[in-house]
Formats: sequence, C-alpha cells, structure tokens
Amino acid sequence: MKLAFLGTGNMGAPMALNLIHAGHEVTVYNRTLRKTDPLAKAGARLAQSPADAVGGADVAITMLANDQAVREAMLAANAGQRAAIDALARGAVHMSASTISVAFSKELAEAHTTRGQGYVAAPVLGRPEAAAAKKLWIMAAGPPDQVDRCRPLMEAMGRGVTIVGEQPWRANLAKIAANFMLASMLETMAEAFALIKKSGTDVHPFLEILNALFSSPVYTNYGQIIAGGQFEPAGFRLTLGSKDVGLALAAAQDAAVPMPLASLIRDHYLSAIAHGRGDADWSALAEVVARDAGLA
Amino acid sequence: MKLAFLGTGNMGAPMALNLIHAGHEVTVYNRTLRKTDPLAKAGARLAQSPADAVGGADVAITMLANDQAVREAMLAANAGQRAAIDALARGAVHMSASTISVAFSKELAEAHTTRGQGYVAAPVLGRPEAAAAKKLWIMAAGPPDQVDRCRPLMEAMGRGVTIVGEQPWRANLAKIAANFMLASMLETMAEAFALIKKSGTDVHPFLEILNALFSSPVYTNYGQIIAGGQFEPAGFRLTLGSKDVGLALAAAQDAAVPMPLASLIRDHYLSAIAHGRGDADWSALAEVVARDAGLA
Amino acid sequence: MKLAFLGTGNMGAPMALNLIHAGHEVTVYNRTLRKTDPLAKAGARLAQSPADAVGGADVAITMLANDQAVREAMLAANAGQRAAIDALARGAVHMSASTISVAFSKELAEAHTTRGQGYVAAPVLGRPEAAAAKKLWIMAAGPPDQVDRCRPLMEAMGRGVTIVGEQPWRANLAKIAANFMLASMLETMAEAFALIKKSGTDVHPFLEILNALFSSPVYTNYGQIIAGGQFEPAGFRLTLGSKDVGLALAAAQDAAVPMPLASLIRDHYLSAIAHGRGDADWSALAEVVARDAGLA
Amino acid sequence: MKLAFLGTGNMGAPMALNLIHAGHEVTVYNRTLRKTDPLAKAGARLAQSPADAVGGADVAITMLANDQAVREAMLAANAGQRAAIDALARGAVHMSASTISVAFSKELAEAHTTRGQGYVAAPVLGRPEAAAAKKLWIMAAGPPDQVDRCRPLMEAMGRGVTIVGEQPWRANLAKIAANFMLASMLETMAEAFALIKKSGTDVHPFLEILNALFSSPVYTNYGQIIAGGQFEPAGFRLTLGSKDVGLALAAAQDAAVPMPLASLIRDHYLSAIAHGRGDADWSALAEVVARDAGLA
Repeated sequence: MKLAFLGTGNMGAPMALNLIHAGHEVTVYNRTLRKTDPLAKAGARLAQSPADAVGGADVAITMLANDQAVREAMLAANAGQRAAIDALARGAVHMSASTISVAFSKELAEAHTTRGQGYVAAPVLGRPEAAAAKKLWIMAAGPPDQVDRCRPLMEAMGRGVTIVGEQPWRANLAKIAANFMLASMLETMAEAFALIKKSGTDVHPFLEILNALFSSPVYTNYGQIIAGGQFEPAGFRLTLGSKDVGLALAAAQDAAVPMPLASLIRDHYLSAIAHGRGDADWSALAEVVARDAGLA
Repeated sequence: MKLAFLGTGNMGAPMALNLIHAGHEVTVYNRTLRKTDPLAKAGARLAQSPADAVGGADVAITMLANDQAVREAMLAANAGQRAAIDALARGAVHMSASTISVAFSKELAEAHTTRGQGYVAAPVLGRPEAAAAKKLWIMAAGPPDQVDRCRPLMEAMGRGVTIVGEQPWRANLAKIAANFMLASMLETMAEAFALIKKSGTDVHPFLEILNALFSSPVYTNYGQIIAGGQFEPAGFRLTLGSKDVGLALAAAQDAAVPMPLASLIRDHYLSAIAHGRGDADWSALAEVVARDAGLA
Repeated sequence: MKLAFLGTGNMGAPMALNLIHAGHEVTVYNRTLRKTDPLAKAGARLAQSPADAVGGADVAITMLANDQAVREAMLAANAGQRAAIDALARGAVHMSASTISVAFSKELAEAHTTRGQGYVAAPVLGRPEAAAAKKLWIMAAGPPDQVDRCRPLMEAMGRGVTIVGEQPWRANLAKIAANFMLASMLETMAEAFALIKKSGTDVHPFLEILNALFSSPVYTNYGQIIAGGQFEPAGFRLTLGSKDVGLALAAAQDAAVPMPLASLIRDHYLSAIAHGRGDADWSALAEVVARDAGLA
Repeated sequence: MKLAFLGTGNMGAPMALNLIHAGHEVTVYNRTLRKTDPLAKAGARLAQSPADAVGGADVAITMLANDQAVREAMLAANAGQRAAIDALARGAVHMSASTISVAFSKELAEAHTTRGQGYVAAPVLGRPEAAAAKKLWIMAAGPPDQVDRCRPLMEAMGRGVTIVGEQPWRANLAKIAANFMLASMLETMAEAFALIKKSGTDVHPFLEILNALFSSPVYTNYGQIIAGGQFEPAGFRLTLGSKDVGLALAAAQDAAVPMPLASLIRDHYLSAIAHGRGDADWSALAEVVARDAGLA
C-alpha cells in the first residue's frame, strides 16, 4: 500500500520502519526533519509538509503527541497550503495511532466522513522498545471494512489487535482507560513503597512478593524503577502521563462518571510538575508521595 | 514435628491438611468444631481449647481472621483455663499466618520473647483454592534461626517464601501492603469499567486489552468478576478487605505516611457496607463506583 | 453615563435596574427578549443585538452564564453583523461581571487592548435578592483609571468593592476561589450532617452549634437548606456550581497547584449530575454524600 | 456546689476559675501540679490524686486531652489507690468537658450508670481566651435531670448551651463534627490561598472578600493566620487537630458513613506531622498544601 506516516518520534519511527520492512511504500513527515534520516535510509520518501505526505496515500497514519499536534498536522492550513485532510484522497483512510481525546476523535470522524474519507482510531500500547520489536498491542475501532483495510498495517507493527467497536472514539477511550490503569498502578506502588520505606523495611523482598502476586512484567518493571528511584531517562514523560490522566477526566466529565482515583493522580502529577519534574518518567509521581511522607 | 494449628476455616483447613500430608503430627483447634471433621479423618488430633492444642507443640500455627481472634486464641485466659501462650513450651515457636496489625504483631513478639518462646510472622498470599493446591506464597519475618525452623512447614503449604526481615512485624506490614495493592487494583478497574460502561462501550474488548497489557492472572480473574458483576459467592469478604485497608491506614498513621488512595478505598468500602454489601466479594466496591456514576 | 448591559437574567436584571435608578442611560440586550420587559418599563432602551447595544456606550457591562456566552455576545460575528467588540468605541470600557475563566479573561484583555478599549473584570458575590437590594459585593481588577471610571457603576449595584489587582483576570481568579470556598462549605456540611443523621441524632441542635461557632449568615442559610433537604427551587443551579469548580481546577492546573478538595467536589457534582440533579440547588451535593452513606 | 475539676491546662484552668468566681467550692487536680497554683490562690483546694479530688464532690468535671487521659484519670486504679470513678459518690455526676471519642463516651456512660452515678457530656467550643472570658459555647447531652443539675456550672463557664440529646455521646459526636467543620475550613483556605499566591496575586484583597462573603470572625481569624503563615505559637496544636479528625473518622467508620473530606484532612495532617509540624497550630496544614504546590 501507499502509506503516509506523520510523526516519526520515539514511537513513530520504529513503527514506520516496520511498515517499510513489510513492503509498503511509505512517505514520512516529521516537524523535526533530523528524525526522518534513518527512515530515508530505509527507503522512505520524505515529505515537506503533512499535505505533501498524504497526497497520494491509501492510508495516512498519525502518531503524534496530543490533540493539538494532530490538529495542526491534519486540520490546519498553514502558510498558504491547504490542510492535509483536504489533500487526502476521497476513499483513503486516516489511521490515527495517537493518544487523543474522545472529543477530538469524534470531531475527526465527522471531518473525514464529510470528505468521503475513512477514519480508524488505532492507538497502541507499548514503549519504544516494544514498537521496535513489533510487540505493540493495538486497539482499533472504526467501520469494519475500514478496520479490515488497516489490519495488515496493524499486524506489521504489533503483536495483536483488539477491536473495540465501530465508532473510532471507542478505541481512544479504551486507550485512555488503559493508561489510567497504568498510572493507578504507579500511584499504588508509590504509596505501598512509601509505607515500607518509612518503616525502615527493605523494599526488595516486597518486589519479590509483587512478582509472586501479580506475575506481571509491568509490575516487575515499574516496581524496580520506583524502588530504585530511577526516573531518568524518561520512558514516558510525566507531562504526557499528566495529559493522559486529563484525557480520562475529560471523558469522565462528559459521561458524568466520578473517577476519584484519576483525580488523585491528577493532583499528584500537578505537584510533580510544580516541583519541576515534568520531564522525568511518569513513575516519578512516587517522589510526590515520598515527599508527603517526609522521605528525603 | 509436633504442630498445633489454630483456626481451620476456608484457608486454615487446607493448610493444616498439607501439613498432615507432609508427615507432621498435627493437633487442630477451631471454635466451630464441625470444621475440624475432615482434618480428624486425615489424622489430626482435635483439641478442646487453644491451650490444650499448643501444649506439647514444637510450633503453634495460627490462621485466624483478625487481631481480636488471635488475641482471644493466644492471649486470653478463658473459663479458668490458662492462656494458650502460657501453655506453649519455652523454646517452642508461634508461627502466625494471620493477617494482623503491625502493632499487634509487635505486642505478640514481646509477649513471646518474655516467655522464652519464638515468634515468626508468616502471612500468606492466595485464596482457598491456592491453599489446597499448595500454591500459597508465604512472606516470613523473624529471627533467622526461628524462620529456618519453620521453613519446612512453609514449604509444605506453599510454592515459595519471601524473607522480609528479622522483626516479625515486617512480614505483617508486607502482607498489608500487598493486600492494599490488590484493593487498589479493584478500585482502578471499578473506575475504568464505569467509564467504559457508561459510554456504552462493550467491556469485553477492554478485558482483552488488560490481559495484553498486564499479562497477569490476577487482572484476568478480577477483570472478569467486575465486568460480569459476579460478586457472590465471596472469594474474600468485603468486610475483611475493609479491615485490611484499615490495617494499612493504621500502619500508615503510626509511620506518618499519607496514603490517599488507601483513604479513598476505605471510604468506598464504607459505602458498600452502608449499602449492605459487607458479605459480598471485596471486588464489589465496583458497585459503589458504578452507583456514583448513576449506573444501575 | 451611557451604558450597555448584556445579559438580563436573574442577576443581570436587578443589576441593570439599579443602574437605571442611579440615573444612567442604559441599553439592554438579552437573548430571550421577554426578560427585558421590566427594564424597558423602567426606561431602558432595548437593543436587537449585542453590537447594537454597545454601539454608543461608554461602558458595556456583561453579566452572562459562562465563557461561551460571553464569547458569543462579545466576540462572535453573527448573521453578517460585526462582533460587539468591534462595535464598541475606542476608549470605551468593557466591564465583565460574569464568572468566567482566568484564561478567557486574559484573552478578553488582549482583545480589548488591541482595539484601544478598556477592560475591567468585576465579578460579583451575592444571590438575586442581594442584587435587587444593592447588596452585592464586587471584586474588581484592571488598570486603575479604568476601574475608577467603573466605580460609580459598582457602587450603584453593590454594598462594597474590593480591588484585587491591576490585571483583570485576578478578579476572576478571586471570584473562582470564593465560589470554591462556598462549595467546600457545602461539602463539609454534607459530610457532617450525614454523620449526625446516620447516628440518629437530631440535626437542629447542630445547626445551633454552627451558628454559635461561625456566626455567619451563609452557614445559617445553607445549614437550613441542607438539614431540611430543600434543594428546590435552585438559588444557584448545581450545573453552574459544577462549572465553577471546573474553573478553579482549570486555573489550578495552569498554575500547577494541586487542589484535592476541589477535585473531590468536582467528583461529587458529577455524581449529582449522573443522578439527574443538575437543575437542583448546588447544595444538593449533600444528596451524593447522603447516598454514599446509605441514607435514603 | 462541691466540685472536682480534673485537668487544669490552658482550657481547664480558666474554666475552673470561673466556677470558683461563681461561688462554687472547687477541688482541682492536675498531673502537673505547677498549673494549679493560680487556682489555689483563687481559693481552690488542691487534690493529690483524681480519687482524692472527686471524693466528696457533687459534680466532677474533666477537661483532659483525649480518651487516654480521661481513662487514666477516671478509670485507672493507680499505685494501690482505687479508681476515681469508685471514689465518686452514688448520685454524683461526672460532667465530661473533654473532646473524647463516641465509643469511649458510651463506655463511660455505662460505667457510671452501673455505679448509680450520673454522667453528662458537655464538650466546649472556644479557645483559651474564650474560656477566660466566659465565652465558651457548650454542647451538652445526658439525662435531662442530670443536665439540669449541671446547667448552672455550664452557665458559669460559657455564653450559651445547646442541648444535643439524652445520650451523652451525642454531644461528643456534635463536638467532633464541629471540629471537623473547622478543620475543613482550614483545608479550604489552604487550597484557595495556594492558588492565589502561586498566581502571584496579593492575598489581602481575598481576605477582605472572605469577610464580605462569610462575615464570620472564625474566617477572619484563621484567614489572617494562614495568609501570614503565623503558625506559632499554636492556639490549638496540630497533633490535637489530627486526633480530632481521627475521632470523626472513627465515628464515621462505626456508622458506615464515608467522609472523604475528613480522609483528605487526615492525610494532610499526617504529612504535616511527617515534616515535624505536630506542635504548630493546626492551621499549619496550609504548609502541606503550599508545599505540594511547590510554594516555598
């Protein structure tokens, strides 16, 4: 297929590379050009603008930081050029892999439908290493025929796909809820470890207990990070984690669902940001909990 | 070894049975005699009182519901009889498998030390099925020589042991923290599922996503329970879960550690109890979250 | 002075009337025309559009429900007509009495400065009865000369003025913080009364104690409302209270200030809305607390 | 009347003095003898023990720090001497002015009833200055005839009395709820001031606004303390405030009433204690909120 790929950062670059390796014809665009070099070497065409990138594409994939970045890439008409969405062909599909808000996903769906284009939300679970290793888990939603068209692309980038529903925003909601599950696990560990540390008890046996209890690589991984206070370099930046909890609260507000734990995490992330830790790993919310307990 | 086993309920009975099968000479005591029948058939001696049970034991094991039950069994002198702790031989060890408070565990340690007896805290992770299948995980703490004496017993009852430290209460703290981790997972799922359900999205794809994300049997198990609202029969009663969160908050208060997530869970458990759900499974705190969201 | 008054609802109408009584020449505009009848009888000129209203005004006053309503009235160019802000004369002042967000107040300040117009934020404290009785308390912020120009208007509408600062948004922030103080008082009463009621204790002695303790008419008033469950008719609608707590949380997010109590109230308001109580008085968040306690 | 007064600290001493001035025959006891000197000069008899003090009394008044202190003074048999409760005459009344738990108040009621003694709970609202100025507000509960007997004493110490009910514990519950109302006000102010300060806005206009809004001397007083950060010397020590919130949560637990705001305050007090601020004024919980916001 002819593909456009917008956003070749830590996550997007390995994803695009896997698409190239799978034999697709990929045109990439990134605001910072330097990040596209390795892709060009692998055979990608470099586009000068989003509109340029998506021009002849069957499927345009976006992998960007937030609503605003997707809005700028797809909907904004910059510098006299038409917006990418207007350059995308009728019948082509926008496959949005970014973690965006439910509200914006609904807006995108309407914008594409109006133009006779397809729109599939396909956010991904996994860190950059997982993206490189083709081990992402993809949650997709959209009209079944459009999802089917995108499925080979998903399979080229991940180890599995869950179909969430026929309205694209449902996949975004699932992704937001999944990230909330992770952030809650971080808060939980932060409190448990603060209790154990402040009582003067070694945390390593507790890590072993968590492994025995959950048998989950996610607990093992974050348990070690939090126990050791290894919040740099960030695997996933705290400001992004904070943004994602905000997306959960925004969706919860629209649906009139109280999520007091999400509120608690939001407040802890704000405290971390107030203490200048926005660029640390999102598990550094453990520092907030430790500080509140008077731990150094 | 000559063993006394006090408390042969859902958990204690299969644990005691595994000790009998491992070749130990076991005397059992339970307030409700009926529960000791299967053990008698398997070869256990039945005692008429805690003091009677622990009289000639090398190790006395307690597996009871809470501080008060252990206090009554070990420390109380009832009906003119001396307290079990005074019937236990000098040099014998009390191995406490119950989930009790840090404060009471310290009190027990002193009471045993004063009498020249050993005391090991060895609370267990796992449900009754795991106890029957010898799959408990045991977290032990106490003086190393005493822990070593108890180790064959632990191995007869579980699949693994973590040594938490040399002061018995540290194992109780670890157990309390582990149960807090589980309760937090329940709260987290409750909020995520409320969000997804209220938005009219099918929860089953989200269960699949949680499996892909955590790869943890605990998430799989509780995810199904909460998604399906299957809170009866209780695997672990909500009042006991509420008690355990209370133990975490008590330990946190003594150590001056704020645990806002534990506070939140405490309040949700109170609401569940206020609505008459104390005997449901502790995952029924999801009903509280759902009700707050206006879900039926 | 020649005044334009946009928004003659429950609060705006008595405020505009007081300006007429003070001898000003007032042109009023309201989306629902019916609400302007009594003002017309009192001598107000009726305008057909916001732009029409502010055309010849020295000061244009807005008293509208939220950001969106002020945006539509002042900034939107509707039906081929130019926006009100473009109809307002250079050198004229926009005095914004609405409870709007800090972010939008900053946007308005810039929009007016660009056009050589003045802008003063002057939100008010008080219910409709207070507005009618000229008993509002006004918190004003803006460039001192512009505030001075507006002062006679404020004095015609209220019993006192607090100058908060020279940037208009600071008055909006103060208003948002003041409403948060009130909402917190409601949550506090809700919890205290739930405790007292559920214990089977008469609430009336407790009301007397609150009077003795705070000597505050606000406590007396809301204490009676909550104790008696008199949430209809709404003095201030719950959806508006919910909006105002949202404004506090938005300002707190921008300033990186955790406000866990505001988060808690937000979640309780969401629950009230989920149970269909958005049109009740904002003190009906007591129903949420009572329901969580299992009170009927 | 012949009175015994146990506990002549900051509050108790001026209360006892007012009873002497009202013409009663007062015997005082305090663990630290030094504090009784001024009372001796005013005509009080000094007792050597609680039992000694209450021996011939018509009414024994206790004004002590907490459950434990009242338990030691009234129920404990120390150093071979009988307990004060056993020294109190049949038909005499124990008037308990301390802030104690609901559970302990019930225990006291039973202990006195068993002995044919009366028991009235009469906790007080007000700081030491109010006690000296006879301006306390007293909330009393107990059998009406016993309350009537104590009424002249209450009137000698305060400006007003609210009768809460016929079971003494109801007055303790009301006192606990009243202190929760105050602590919540402190948390509310702490959050509002953090928001205002962090935005670089002067807090003094906001104090003026709070006065206009609540017209309450309590808001004025604590507003100034928090705005100015004047947390020493303590008017009411933070550890005592923390204890009182604990009493509210204990009562709430027994009644199955979630009080999430009380939980939040509890956690903030724990953080203050973790940072060594237990002896500051209880309004120093504002420091916790400010620190979480990154304010110095």
